[in-house]
Amino acid sequence: MIPRYTRPEMGRIWSEDYQFELWLRIEIAACEAWRELGAITADEMAAIRNASFSRSEYDRHFDETKHDIVSFTRAVAGSLGPEGRWIHHGLTSNDVKDTALSLQMIDAAQLIRRDIGALCDALRGRALEHKRTLCIGRSHGMHAEPMSFGLKLALWLSEMQRHRDRICELMPRIAVGMMSGPVGTFAGLPPLIETSVCDQLGLTPANVSNQIIQRDRHAEFVQTLALIAATLEKIATEIRGLQRTEVAEVQEPFGTPGFVSKGSSSMPHKRNPELSERICGLARVVRGNSLAACENVALWHERDISHSSAERVILADSAIATDYMLDLMTRIISGMTVDVNRMLANLDMTGGVVFSPRVMLALVEAGVDRNVAYDAVQSSAMSALDAGTDLREALMNNELVLQHIDASRLEQLFDYGYFIRHVDYIYERVGLIRR
Amino acid sequence: MIPRYTRPEMGRIWSEDYQFELWLRIEIAACEAWRELGAITADEMAAIRNASFSRSEYDRHFDETKHDIVSFTRAVAGSLGPEGRWIHHGLTSNDVKDTALSLQMIDAAQLIRRDIGALCDALRGRALEHKRTLCIGRSHGMHAEPMSFGLKLALWLSEMQRHRDRICELMPRIAVGMMSGPVGTFAGLPPLIETSVCDQLGLTPANVSNQIIQRDRHAEFVQTLALIAATLEKIATEIRGLQRTEVAEVQEPFGTPGFVSKGSSSMPHKRNPELSERICGLARVVRGNSLAACENVALWHERDISHSSAERVILADSAIATDYMLDLMTRIISGMTVDVNRMLANLDMTGGVVFSPRVMLALVEAGVDRNVAYDAVQSSAMSALDAGTDLREALMNNELVLQHIDASRLEQLFDYGYFIRHVDYIYERVGLIRR
Amino acid sequence: MIPRYTRPEMGRIWSEDYQFELWLRIEIAACEAWRELGAITADEMAAIRNASFSRSEYDRHFDETKHDIVSFTRAVAGSLGPEGRWIHHGLTSNDVKDTALSLQMIDAAQLIRRDIGALCDALRGRALEHKRTLCIGRSHGMHAEPMSFGLKLALWLSEMQRHRDRICELMPRIAVGMMSGPVGTFAGLPPLIETSVCDQLGLTPANVSNQIIQRDRHAEFVQTLALIAATLEKIATEIRGLQRTEVAEVQEPFGTPGFVSKGSSSMPHKRNPELSERICGLARVVRGNSLAACENVALWHERDISHSSAERVILADSAIATDYMLDLMTRIISGMTVDVNRMLANLDMTGGVVFSPRVMLALVEAGVDRNVAYDAVQSSAMSALDAGTDLREALMNNELVLQHIDASRLEQLFDYGYFIRHVDYIYERVGLIRR
Amino acid sequence: MIPRYTRPEMGRIWSEDYQFELWLRIEIAACEAWRELGAITADEMAAIRNASFSRSEYDRHFDETKHDIVSFTRAVAGSLGPEGRWIHHGLTSNDVKDTALSLQMIDAAQLIRRDIGALCDALRGRALEHKRTLCIGRSHGMHAEPMSFGLKLALWLSEMQRHRDRICELMPRIAVGMMSGPVGTFAGLPPLIETSVCDQLGLTPANVSNQIIQRDRHAEFVQTLALIAATLEKIATEIRGLQRTEVAEVQEPFGTPGFVSKGSSSMPHKRNPELSERICGLARVVRGNSLAACENVALWHERDISHSSAERVILADSAIATDYMLDLMTRIISGMTVDVNRMLANLDMTGGVVFSPRVMLALVEAGVDRNVAYDAVQSSAMSALDAGTDLREALMNNELVLQHIDASRLEQLFDYGYFIRHVDYIYERVGLIRR
Repeated sequence: MIPRYTRPEMGRIWSEDYQFELWLRIEIAACEAWRELGAITADEMAAIRNASFSRSEYDRHFDETKHDIVSFTRAVAGSLGPEGRWIHHGLTSNDVKDTALSLQMIDAAQLIRRDIGALCDALRGRALEHKRTLCIGRSHGMHAEPMSFGLKLALWLSEMQRHRDRICELMPRIAVGMMSGPVGTFAGLPPLIETSVCDQLGLTPANVSNQIIQRDRHAEFVQTLALIAATLEKIATEIRGLQRTEVAEVQEPFGTPGFVSKGSSSMPHKRNPELSERICGLARVVRGNSLAACENVALWHERDISHSSAERVILADSAIATDYMLDLMTRIISGMTVDVNRMLANLDMTGGVVFSPRVMLALVEAGVDRNVAYDAVQSSAMSALDAGTDLREALMNNELVLQHIDASRLEQLFDYGYFIRHVDYIYERVGLIRR
Repeated sequence: MIPRYTRPEMGRIWSEDYQFELWLRIEIAACEAWRELGAITADEMAAIRNASFSRSEYDRHFDETKHDIVSFTRAVAGSLGPEGRWIHHGLTSNDVKDTALSLQMIDAAQLIRRDIGALCDALRGRALEHKRTLCIGRSHGMHAEPMSFGLKLALWLSEMQRHRDRICELMPRIAVGMMSGPVGTFAGLPPLIETSVCDQLGLTPANVSNQIIQRDRHAEFVQTLALIAATLEKIATEIRGLQRTEVAEVQEPFGTPGFVSKGSSSMPHKRNPELSERICGLARVVRGNSLAACENVALWHERDISHSSAERVILADSAIATDYMLDLMTRIISGMTVDVNRMLANLDMTGGVVFSPRVMLALVEAGVDRNVAYDAVQSSAMSALDAGTDLREALMNNELVLQHIDASRLEQLFDYGYFIRHVDYIYERVGLIRR
Repeated sequence: MIPRYTRPEMGRIWSEDYQFELWLRIEIAACEAWRELGAITADEMAAIRNASFSRSEYDRHFDETKHDIVSFTRAVAGSLGPEGRWIHHGLTSNDVKDTALSLQMIDAAQLIRRDIGALCDALRGRALEHKRTLCIGRSHGMHAEPMSFGLKLALWLSEMQRHRDRICELMPRIAVGMMSGPVGTFAGLPPLIETSVCDQLGLTPANVSNQIIQRDRHAEFVQTLALIAATLEKIATEIRGLQRTEVAEVQEPFGTPGFVSKGSSSMPHKRNPELSERICGLARVVRGNSLAACENVALWHERDISHSSAERVILADSAIATDYMLDLMTRIISGMTVDVNRMLANLDMTGGVVFSPRVMLALVEAGVDRNVAYDAVQSSAMSALDAGTDLREALMNNELVLQHIDASRLEQLFDYGYFIRHVDYIYERVGLIRR
Repeated sequence: MIPRYTRPEMGRIWSEDYQFELWLRIEIAACEAWRELGAITADEMAAIRNASFSRSEYDRHFDETKHDIVSFTRAVAGSLGPEGRWIHHGLTSNDVKDTALSLQMIDAAQLIRRDIGALCDALRGRALEHKRTLCIGRSHGMHAEPMSFGLKLALWLSEMQRHRDRICELMPRIAVGMMSGPVGTFAGLPPLIETSVCDQLGLTPANVSNQIIQRDRHAEFVQTLALIAATLEKIATEIRGLQRTEVAEVQEPFGTPGFVSKGSSSMPHKRNPELSERICGLARVVRGNSLAACENVALWHERDISHSSAERVILADSAIATDYMLDLMTRIISGMTVDVNRMLANLDMTGGVVFSPRVMLALVEAGVDRNVAYDAVQSSAMSALDAGTDLREALMNNELVLQHIDASRLEQLFDYGYFIRHVDYIYERVGLIRR
């Protein structure tokens, strides 16, 4: 992933340095396991625990062999005396590489989970702040019925909570290690090595492996990131919709530290929802990567290595982009300006037609046939909309309405508070307030 | 999905007939809920429980309105007397449609889970049958080390078990209903309606909704199907690889009832792995659909309806295709011919070079430096391969080997049994045998 | 594709009936070719020309053989006397099937090209109608600068013209036939058969084939459909954006014959851009299919048949959906209501800040440093926007502006006509008007 | 794209340095255009032509503004005197950025075209070398009929030629520039600026633009790369198939300079087709990117900027990966070992059943009903295959064959040369040999 969208902590997880660090940790853990079995002496082990990795030694071996694990083990063995021969003893490359990859994915998943937590906190704060902030709800981009702005935030919170659950459920499926030799038979090393190494690293041994840990696990990881990214795209799309000039209910942070202060080189008055747009774009990239991750599942026999080149790109990129997007979204949610007055003004702009379903229900409750009520209210609403006038006035000229609903009841019906009277109920369900 | 790949039970779940059946069930459940609240009288409810749906009435209304739920409610109300006005009372279209869609997805997920169970049974049977069937393990398509054929089956079993877990974990996230009105505020109907309806239908109410149930749930459903399909593609790819003329270790069912008995119109001798190829192709379709499902997440505001046209195609198609593929794979696994002798013959074809890692380890254990051992064995293996001779002979001309390994030990090293001595251990982990 | 989105003409192209019709045409063309070579007598050929296909015969053979071409040739041969043995003589299944598929793709491509032509006509008509209809141009969803509504239509027209070019360029790459036998060597039949058959069918022989026509051709076809669908999604997204309640500049056809007249079952006042939303959803499906089409390229050796199951779904679905979307978009463009007054009202709503770039340029032209001008105008624009007042007034309190621009010049600068003075120039380039 | 898969020339095209170089070139070209219009004096222009860009100045401005083009123009203007105010005069950011992006895509497309040329050369060379190299053709991974190895190469050559055509046809659609101001109206600058700038840069002006060049062009570029990648995946899959231990007909370059010389850390005898596997993996990445590119088409109104973050990743990555894959494939094709003897041995391994279609045809030509012939030959072929014996012998025990084909004719039928007698004909069509 390009530096522009890479945050340091997640970037480090996918760096070569960290990978080598993990490889070394695993190689030493394997030696500890051989030590437990008595193959390695205490003295040898004491030396091995101080094994170190030199990048320049690695590069020298790599130039010659073009083989990463061979170069790595030679570099590490070179830091030791004769006990260096125990490094990588009985292992095949992927025992080390795939186990390390699991550790990287877990680290990434934990960071993502933390990011989700931070976003949930931001959503929670703004949701509580705007629990009763009235705004119009829109379906098809059209005004539908009034609602509270906080409900939008509560909905996103609830969706992010599902993502946290997904990450938690996914975790044990990716937290697996493997040390089973060439085709997974433990032919060259006793199963106890795997048990011990996994135990040392906090992993579960993969039930069955065939030189690799199966790629449905990795694919699920990227699919989950793509799904999280899709939710972020949804939130970003909403903010973009609410920031539109004609809507103007919400505005991304702008001009404050850490955010852009120039809108456009030619149009100085513009304050654009560029951060949210950026999130939409990156969601597409992660989505595309999830396809490649799925294609990586069907390897030949006891694995081929075609997944490897794809994974070098998509695992890091997807994790880094999702981490970046989550953080950016957290900052948008925390810092966005909510124009409560504009929300009210927009609510009023359709002259009360948002009350039409309520009037229709009142008619039905008063005994009118549903279809007749529907047609009557639709006709008044349409004429009010076309004339740019108020629905209440239009209804007061409607025979059917006059017949079944009196003026004071009509006044009562036109009350925004009606629409948000169940907000607490919903907030309780999302855990935003306690019963 | 085209009839060719549609099995009746799954096809029915996605049929219009079943959808209307579910709509009716939900509309009546909503009336029951209003009845519980006292809005509907016992007599009215008694009548409503006998409401019926007429497709021809629906079509008549649809021709006029082009609106499905309006046409549906009119058709149902038409089967009733004046109590017909309670049908769809206080509901918005999606309260019914999205709740019904959840029921369809649950039905589909349960069928998929049952399919997975059947495939697991088939895999288990063949895995036990071939626990000690020797075959060569292959990485990169190249002979690697001997293994047991049963291990392949055990690995697939373990992967299908993960898919069953995924379906189980997914289930509560899709088993949600909604009856929250136009933008999810419960403005037009008390929350108790939703609680009651969901309770009647065995669903959990969606925590927050906004006229629809959020599409991350549906996307996860299709992603999971795509992941299952990817595993089936992996198994199918393996069978195709093993059926190749030069390998000939496994053969798809052929010529028996329910399977094709003509190989090719011009080449009568061909027995092709066409079933497995069919599965590979369908996996691509489901994978593509999972991307559309992900794109469906980011709707505008309190939902737009762009997901609807896509879902009409991809939900049904993905579920139907996955059901078809699972069943076909179950029949392939159950019916495939395994040529145990050919497996042994293939094992022997590389003149024992598969024993080279073992020899290398023996050298290391005898105190030889790992790199020196590697180079020595590689050189013997390469010369044996190039000459088409036997590795054991080549090694008996190798100075280093002669020095460290005597003839009887060498004989001992060249034993296939060595490679499968941990099969029981692995089988236990997958639950194939009990300790 | 489900019937709801299938138009009859395109549906027929992908029907089984039409496929059998093409197979028959190709089998007879192959006989004609053998006749030219003298293998078949004139009498035999006369009989063969009257060969017919019976679906029930086919079904009978298929039940027995499960092989489509074998069943087909038996059914056709059964309609003949002893000359029936010449049916499929020397051919392999795919010689017939793949050549037929090319004919289907050509038919589909021609229909798509015609659809594009119809959409271009609709765009052209509305573009001419609205050449000078003022509206605000928006970037990032924010008001940017005034433009003409016709320019949006002209842009779409230009993009559809590119799609027409793409279809035309693609056509020769899909208009290829093949009659080269099992692995493409012409071993069983002379190359002249292929030449003659392709000539009879208006196809070019594939340069090299290997039992199939290569799938890069089919993939390009689906990719092109996905690209067309993406443009339709773009147009649909624009219409959805312009129909939003707060924008209200454009409205999809509604309530007129062939279009829906019910907005919502609970909200009778809603007129939703559901047609455009439908297009957005279908674009996702075609996009997903394009990935499956790409995955179909890499078959094993001289083809496997994994592409076949995928193609049965994605080729038909993508072509049918794109045809449907093109037609629907044509009807939307032709029938949409354009609210010219609302466009003007929206243009005025930002108090003239759209003129800020123009003022900035005027300052630069008057010798002010660009950055200084930018900052000055930005500050006035921001304060006007924040106060909800008019930019012109704000500028008249701006020292820098007073210094360099006098009142009459300022008045001149605030002229919408300025922004559309080059419309004719652009229209000429798109071929909308002649110089 | 990670350095591992980045070749320097393509990497440079997508570097920030090169982008700034292009921006400067375009800004100066715009000044030249203003000079032509008389706005800039000769002296000013002379100075402007020496404008330079300082990265450190840029970084300083970017820290402050977070806006790339503002920072860029300030940095460039800072290298000049008062004439610096003409830099970016009348332009909007995307006039520069999108025009520069076109130049990058053209450079990339030209490099890809050159890569394709090099691969075609390699394919041509090996195709001529192996024109008459007999090998078995395989469908479904099963032996089908004999063919020449050169035909595989000829088929790939023909497919790469189509890709070259696609790149050529695509080129004019991406070779477009734009200098049309904020929403494409030329409000702030005369159209002649665009004409002049495009002329200076070798571009065509985009017919209509709306602050950006439309993204169908960029999407087509990535789609085409994904299609090329799919073909490379096909070739790579074939090589992997042919290198399998049991097949062993082809071997990737190994152990020669520039190629890996270690097969596996634990299995020294392995020579794996890892380069081809690497290509397969990268093809998946480019394929996923093509989806994101398609999603980038549907921007809001006169563009939003959501495409930008995606394009920063996918355009560079797709071009760099495709360039890498093309080069790697060229080296594989040039350097691969073709084992002609093994091809012959494999051809013989099925005991002549490959001749069965030929025998069947001979029977038909001798007057036997096609179905009867089919069944007869199938039965002999099956029994020969099952017994591991020779088809010719089996046929000599077949009543029907004995009746219609005598021994010398049968001998004649079993001739491999028969299968490749039309190779010259095919080679001519691909332009490999002249008539």
